[in-house]
Order: sequence, then structure tokens, then C-alpha cells
Amino acid sequence: MRHLVTLDDLSNFEIEQIFRLAAGMQSQQETWAGICRGKLLATLFYEPSTRTRLSFESAMERLNGRTLGFSDPRATSTAKGETLADTARMVTNYADLIVVRHNWAGSARVIAQHAHVPVINGGDGSHTHPTQALADLYTIMRRKSQIQGLTVGICGDLQFGRAAHSFSLAVARFGGNLIHIAPKPLQMPPWVLAQLEQCHGQKPLEVESVIEVIDRLDVIYVNRLQEERLPANMDAATVRGSYLLNAAVMKNAKPDAMIMHPLPRVNELAYELDDDPRAAYFEQSANAVPVRMALIASLMGLEQLILTQPPERDIAASAKLCENPNCVTNHETYLTPERETFDATVELHACAYCGNLVS
Amino acid sequence: MRHLVTLDDLSNFEIEQIFRLAAGMQSQQETWAGICRGKLLATLFYEPSTRTRLSFESAMERLNGRTLGFSDPRATSTAKGETLADTARMVTNYADLIVVRHNWAGSARVIAQHAHVPVINGGDGSHTHPTQALADLYTIMRRKSQIQGLTVGICGDLQFGRAAHSFSLAVARFGGNLIHIAPKPLQMPPWVLAQLEQCHGQKPLEVESVIEVIDRLDVIYVNRLQEERLPANMDAATVRGSYLLNAAVMKNAKPDAMIMHPLPRVNELAYELDDDPRAAYFEQSANAVPVRMALIASLMGLEQLILTQPPERDIAASAKLCENPNCVTNHETYLTPERETFDATVELHACAYCGNLVS
Amino acid sequence: MRHLVTLDDLSNFEIEQIFRLAAGMQSQQETWAGICRGKLLATLFYEPSTRTRLSFESAMERLNGRTLGFSDPRATSTAKGETLADTARMVTNYADLIVVRHNWAGSARVIAQHAHVPVINGGDGSHTHPTQALADLYTIMRRKSQIQGLTVGICGDLQFGRAAHSFSLAVARFGGNLIHIAPKPLQMPPWVLAQLEQCHGQKPLEVESVIEVIDRLDVIYVNRLQEERLPANMDAATVRGSYLLNAAVMKNAKPDAMIMHPLPRVNELAYELDDDPRAAYFEQSANAVPVRMALIASLMGLEQLILTQPPERDIAASAKLCENPNCVTNHETYLTPERETFDATVELHACAYCGNLVS
Repeated sequence: MRHLVTLDDLSNFEIEQIFRLAAGMQSQQETWAGICRGKLLATLFYEPSTRTRLSFESAMERLNGRTLGFSDPRATSTAKGETLADTARMVTNYADLIVVRHNWAGSARVIAQHAHVPVINGGDGSHTHPTQALADLYTIMRRKSQIQGLTVGICGDLQFGRAAHSFSLAVARFGGNLIHIAPKPLQMPPWVLAQLEQCHGQKPLEVESVIEVIDRLDVIYVNRLQEERLPANMDAATVRGSYLLNAAVMKNAKPDAMIMHPLPRVNELAYELDDDPRAAYFEQSANAVPVRMALIASLMGLEQLILTQPPERDIAASAKLCENPNCVTNHETYLTPERETFDATVELHACAYCGNLVS
Repeated sequence: MRHLVTLDDLSNFEIEQIFRLAAGMQSQQETWAGICRGKLLATLFYEPSTRTRLSFESAMERLNGRTLGFSDPRATSTAKGETLADTARMVTNYADLIVVRHNWAGSARVIAQHAHVPVINGGDGSHTHPTQALADLYTIMRRKSQIQGLTVGICGDLQFGRAAHSFSLAVARFGGNLIHIAPKPLQMPPWVLAQLEQCHGQKPLEVESVIEVIDRLDVIYVNRLQEERLPANMDAATVRGSYLLNAAVMKNAKPDAMIMHPLPRVNELAYELDDDPRAAYFEQSANAVPVRMALIASLMGLEQLILTQPPERDIAASAKLCENPNCVTNHETYLTPERETFDATVELHACAYCGNLVS
Repeated sequence: MRHLVTLDDLSNFEIEQIFRLAAGMQSQQETWAGICRGKLLATLFYEPSTRTRLSFESAMERLNGRTLGFSDPRATSTAKGETLADTARMVTNYADLIVVRHNWAGSARVIAQHAHVPVINGGDGSHTHPTQALADLYTIMRRKSQIQGLTVGICGDLQFGRAAHSFSLAVARFGGNLIHIAPKPLQMPPWVLAQLEQCHGQKPLEVESVIEVIDRLDVIYVNRLQEERLPANMDAATVRGSYLLNAAVMKNAKPDAMIMHPLPRVNELAYELDDDPRAAYFEQSANAVPVRMALIASLMGLEQLILTQPPERDIAASAKLCENPNCVTNHETYLTPERETFDATVELHACAYCGNLVS
């Protein structure tokens, strides 16, 4: 049984297969309509979501499957103190597939460990958001045919933006050249940078303003500022100003650049760009449905050629507690810390739950 | 593509066609069961609702379609500051039809402008509630065959009651004679009165107590008092007393009168009337399902003979901001004010979003 | 039409028939998949729930039926002051079957009185939780073949635990020997004890600690402490200590004992027992789905041989108000008190809504 907890659960070959299936589903929806008949998807949303939850539900229904779940943890047994493990053991009886969003990093991994059905990470804290990254990659491949060789700028809140983390790692895996654009305190966290370097040999250029590099970018990926997480001494307007994308800024961009945004946007992406042919964000939003359809069908084994062998990973129990206070291992006491080694020659490990570096 | 934002989006002929289809669906549900197979309805409820949301979901499921959506905006991207326009652009990818309820007047119109699928207004602020009015009209037509010539009293909170607004305008369109019954501060707002006069040549009698006119009414339509919106100097019990309907009051009513109420009721409609054969409100509640089934099938083009030509309307951009603080144009900054002219010979216009008069 | 408001609505014969159907549905799910095609289940959850709501939704979907409803009363007409009776009259138009959970004892009975479709009690205040008891009984029967003659210990919060109430009465009906294990202030309420004695001639042994009786138990049923309802002078940790189940305690239990828990657990059931072969609680959780599938099919009359004659009950209007402040009759003013007589020779009656003794 296969899960999608982080993108490391899929090989590049498998991702490309999923995209091929997604393209087929997008162009010939009728053909695939019955593939999930009689199957149930559970959507466990412990955090607010419209886009991710509804697009998964839409994807499942388009395949003739059904959904159940919750979108407000206050109306669930969580309010009574139930652990993630027990919730997983329960829901595994009710559904054939689970999507979970939770505010703790690593939470989807815990659900996957205790469920007997495939689990998809719909976003775990400030860690990762792999299905968003799949939709993002797919959108680039549809417009540009490939990612290899493209210069991809990611701007905004790279510190807390889980979509940015997954996207950055995904672009590197497929050979894109990254530029990280963010004010100093919001730059990409060390664990993403370490993985980029160790696994993909890439040290992205880091700049503080999108204007500096706008003319070099093939893809401009903008991220929402998570205002509620901003350090007290930073001003939201100033921060946002450093990577605001509008018509004036886009004048200096390549004529065939792509503007992307996982949405929802607040003020960092001007409405005046909506009619710019380089705007790809509505397309990106629409692509989320066929990509999730293909992923669902693949994980449920309904398209058996898609998923072959899971990538090999070097994960082992660890004696050390993870230092990330938001890591699920610091909230659910029955968990044993585990660490992943990317390159045995370097003494650098990552928490297998939240990805944070473990010294 | 057709929407139902206000009843002005449908001609009288089309409404009657929808009622014919509804009657067919009500008597022979099996015949129509498969008509929405494979179709998805998104229910976007930014305000509390059981009746409207569940009856739409029931209607869609009875036609073998499916639903997805939300009933609590706190669990959505709205909490992250997403505009209605962006929400519409997103949901349009997930569903084949949208029902929206929102607390801003004119909000459904904004969703309709940005979606690529038909949109139904499930209630927008204190503005209108067109599908309730359809169920209301249908219920009268089922009992009385026609509305033409009937004397219809509408009592309760006419100031804020969106169902009352839509119902009043609907009755006038079909030739009913209106009496508005409400304490002074809760009387029908100027924009409804203006439209009644300009479009339908009707100046309803306005009285303050139902007792004054009870013996003349063929239809008594009672409305819930929206206590939370009551001016500070008014007492809810006193206000409610002025239009309370109970057995004593009904003694003076016609033997074949109809008692209607959009429900939920609080204290304005006594339980002792539930067994009175003139009570039509449970019937009215039940009728909401077939009427919404017929509407869904019609808007989705599944019954192509039903909808013919949309009524012509004279709507143009306006330089003036709408003065209604609850109008969506005063909340979503990307919107351009628009005004509708009902009668070019009179210098009187209505905001095309919230209906309010624009001088 | 049949409802399941309390287990008294079903005869023992009928319960056993439902279990036979459940076993068939569990082993041959495909055979029964289409039985609810075109049918709608309404889930009205006025209280938090994941397990009960999702297992009902899963059960209905597994039978190819559909669900609609709410899980948060703040997003419903209840917030506008609607009575249970009016809610029932509304929902009866939208669905073919209703499941309701509500914090008032007796609330499901009110829904059943006003709906025209079968109603299932999904938990009413501190009163009963009959479908949980069905899943519990079924789990014992699957492991032990019968309940007759087994010694069954029920520990935890017996005062407020509705699952414990239903389970205790159910075990007695099928001839199990009960031991009630709870600290004094949390012991089984008088109405359950009275019914056990009057209807089943059983006076369960009452002890304060599970250790005293652990070696005699065939079934150990643990209940969550409802901390929010604990009297101010009691300490949650101490109380929980008196019936905490862990490996040390289980050393003294029979080798073929069964550990049960309706879940969610908090701290009263140690994770170290999860791998003990005597642990039956995950099985019990999984069994909830086929049992509810069988119940749904039976109540909807889809399996006509299952339900035969409802048990005869002696219920009459009463002049006295129920003294339980949480009884629905003290909240919904249109209700007439009714009382049930179990044994006419004893002057002891129970409120027909909440079960409380009426002098």
C-alpha cells in the first residue's frame, strides 16, 4: 500500500505517470468517470480549507466515488482528546482512502502509520503540501513541456509556506534552477536548503526583492504572507511590498514567463494581472482537480501501471527528540522519534516526521 | 448560461414552466431520478442555514447528482481573506452548479459574474431570497390554481426579511393584490415599494396590525422577526404581538385562506394552528424540494424547453457608490457600481447588486 | 414504521436478526451494496461526534445510499430558535431516514414523533446510545457466541455515560451477569438500576475499583470519564485511577477476557494493551459499520423479514412534569409529559422521554 505523505514517497517516474493519467482524465473525463464507484474518501480537515478539501471531494466525485469527513475539528472527537493514532484506526474502517490536513508537522505520517488504507497529506503545519506541488509541477509541464532548465523564482513567506517548501523541492528534483525571494526573516528554512543541496546539489540564489531578478525568471511563484505568524517587529505591508507582483513589476518580466500562486491571495498579487496571458494561477487552480483524480486512482491501485516501486529511503529510530515544537512527535506521546539520512557521508539528518534538521 | 440571482432573471412564463416541471417531479419522482447523474452542486453557505442548504442537497441527490461545499465560513479560505470573485473562480472548477448564501446584499451577483457555471442565490443579506419565493408561489398555485386576483397579506419584519422582499415582488408580478402588515420601523424598504410601483403599478396598502385586515386576506404570509436586527428602542414581544397569528386571530379569517411562513418560526405563529386546514406552511416547506429540483434541472439545461429567453434588463455602470453599507460593492473593492433602470421616464434607479435606490 | 429511540424499540429476536444480517453484510459486502440506492440519510448532529456520524455515513454509502445533514448546530436554524418538532417536520421532507444526536435526554423521541420517516437515536444527552450498544453486543457475540452466562463488568463514568446505560440494559436483556464498577458519585443512575431489576430481575454487584473483580470478568467494558461533568470536589486523575486498565491490571484477568471501550479513550485505557489479544475495542469500532448497515436496511424496510412486531410498551400521558432538568420535556414547551410503566404491580414509572424515574 502506498501513501503520499511527502513528495519523497513518489519517484520522478511515478510523478510523470500520474501527470499522464491526469492529462487523460482532463481531456476525456467521461472515460474515467466510473473508476472509483463504490469507493469512499475520508477528508479529515483539522485546519480551515476550501480549495484543498473541495478539490479532493470534486476529484473523488468526478470518479464516481463518495466522500465523508469533517472540516471543523471542534465538532469531532478531537475535542474529547482523541489521539491521531486512534482517529486513524477508526477512520480506516469507514473509508478506502484518507486525506488529512492538520496543524502539526508530521501529522499525516502518523495517520499513515495507523491506517490500513492509503493516506494523502493535505498539508501538515508549516511542513509540506505535496498535492499542491503536484498541481504546480503539472501546470508548468502543461505550459512549458518540461521543468529542466527553467529558472523558477519562489517569493513570499518561504519560512512558513508549506506549499513553497514542497514546490521548491519538487522543482529541484526535476532539474529547475531555483531563486528564493523573501525578506530575511521569511527565508527558506534550513531543512529545505539542506535537502536541496544534499539530494539535488542545488544552492538556490537567495534575494530579498522580486524586482532584482524578475527579468531572469521563467516561472514566478508567489506565496501568501501568513500574517498571523509574522514576527512582531515586522510590518506586513512592507514585507508584502518586497514581493508584490503587479503590472509595473511584470513589465520587466519575460514575455513567456508564468505567474503562479497557490491561492488564496491577499494583496501580494494584483487583480490587474488576471488578464495578463502570463497569469497561470487560475489554470493552476483548475489543474488541481485532474491531478488529484489521477493521484486518487493511482494510490487506490485502480491504475496499476502508475505506481511501481516506492523510492528507497534511509529512515531509522532516533534517540533524540525533535527540536521543532510543532512536530507531531512533541504532541503525541506514543510516538518514537525517527530520523532520515539523505547522504550517509554527511552527518546531517532530518526528523522523519517534520523534516527539521536533527543534529 | 443562466443564473438565478433575483427573480428578475426569470420571466413569468419560465417560472410557470419550472412549476410544471416541479409538479411532474413531485408526482413521479422516479422518472426524473437520473437527470443529474454525474453532476456536482457546490453549496457555499456563509450564513447559518438548515432548510435552504439541506433542501438543495436533497433536491440534487433526488436527481442523482452530488453535492459538496461548506456551511461554516470559519472553516474556509474566507478566513484567510479571499474575495468572492476568487472563491467563484475556484469553485467553478469543482462543480457544475453553485448555490450561495452570504450576508452581503448582492453577493450572489458577484459569484455569478466570476463563475463559469450557473449560480443560484440562496439568500443575500437583507436583499432577496428568490428560491424561497418560487416555493412560496408554487404552494399558492397548487392550492389556489392562480395568484391573479388574490389578496395577499405579508406580515412581520418586512424591513430586513429577504424572503418577504422576494415574495412581495413575485406576488405583484403574477397579479396578486398586496397588503403589507408591519409596525412602522419594520415596513417594506423603499426599494421594494419603488419596484412594485414602477414595474407592476402596485401601491400596497400598509397597515400596522394583522387584525385590521385579517378578514380580507386569501393568503396570510407570516415572517420571523429578526430580533438581532431590531432597533434598540423596540420591544420584541410588542412588535411580534402586532402580527402574531393564533387561533383567535384566525377566527376572523376566510375559511379558505392560506397561512404561510417560510420557517423557522419563533413565536409569531402559534402551534395550535398546525392542525388548522388553512395552515399551508408544512406543505410550503415540502414543496421547496421539487421546486428546487426543477430549478436545478432547468438552469443546468437538462430540460431545454424550460428556459427560453432571459428578461431584458437595463443595467449600466454607475459613477456613484451605493449608499447601502451592506452592499457587496462596499466590501469588495474590485467591483464597479452598476445601476438598473426600470422605467426610463422616471429618474429613479436601483443598485444592480443590492437593489437599493440610487438617486 | 419503526424507529430506534431506545433498545426497547426492538425485541431480542429482532436484534439477533439484525446481527445475522450484519454478519452477512460484513463478509459479503458486495452482495448488499445496492440496497439503499436512491435513498437519503439525514444526520442531525447537535453535539460533537466523529465516530457515530462518520460510521453512519459510511454505512449508508456502503449500501449505495447518500447522506446530508449538519455536524454543528451553530450553522443551522437552531441558532434561530427552531424547535425539534419543526426541525423534524422539515427534515422529513429531505430524507428517507434520520439519525439524530442531541444534548437533551429524550430528544430523539421528539424527532421520531414528528418525522414521517424512521428515526435512529445517535445519542441523547446522558440518556442512551442504542446503536453503540448494538455494536457492543454484536462484538461480544462474534467472540463469545452468546452473552447468556457471561460476567460483564462496566467501569468508568456510569452516571453520565449514555453508552454504559444502553450497554448495561442490553447485557441484562440477553442474560449476562452485570458488575458495575465506579467511584460512588459516578455510579449507575437509579433509573437504569430500577429497569434492570424490574424488567430483568437483576441487581448488579456495585464495586468501586476494577481490581476487586478483574479476575471474574469475561467482558471488561471501559468508559471515558466525562471530565466536564465531574463534581467540583472530585479529582479526575484519582477517579480515573480507580478503573484504569493497563497491562499490570490485566495480568489478573482471565486469559480469554474481552476488553471493550466505545472510544474515544483518554487515559483510562493504556496504549500498551493495544496488542493484547484480549483487546476487542478496535474490532468493536470496526463492527459499528456493518451493524449500522443492517439497522439502516431493516428500519427502511429493505429487509422485510428482519423486523417483525415492535415490543409492547405501556406508555401513557402523565400529569407530572419530569424532574430531570435535562429532559427534553423541560425545554420544548409543546410536549406533554408521558410515563412508562414496566411492572404494573409496582408503583414505579419512568419518564417516556428521558427514562428518569417518576414518582
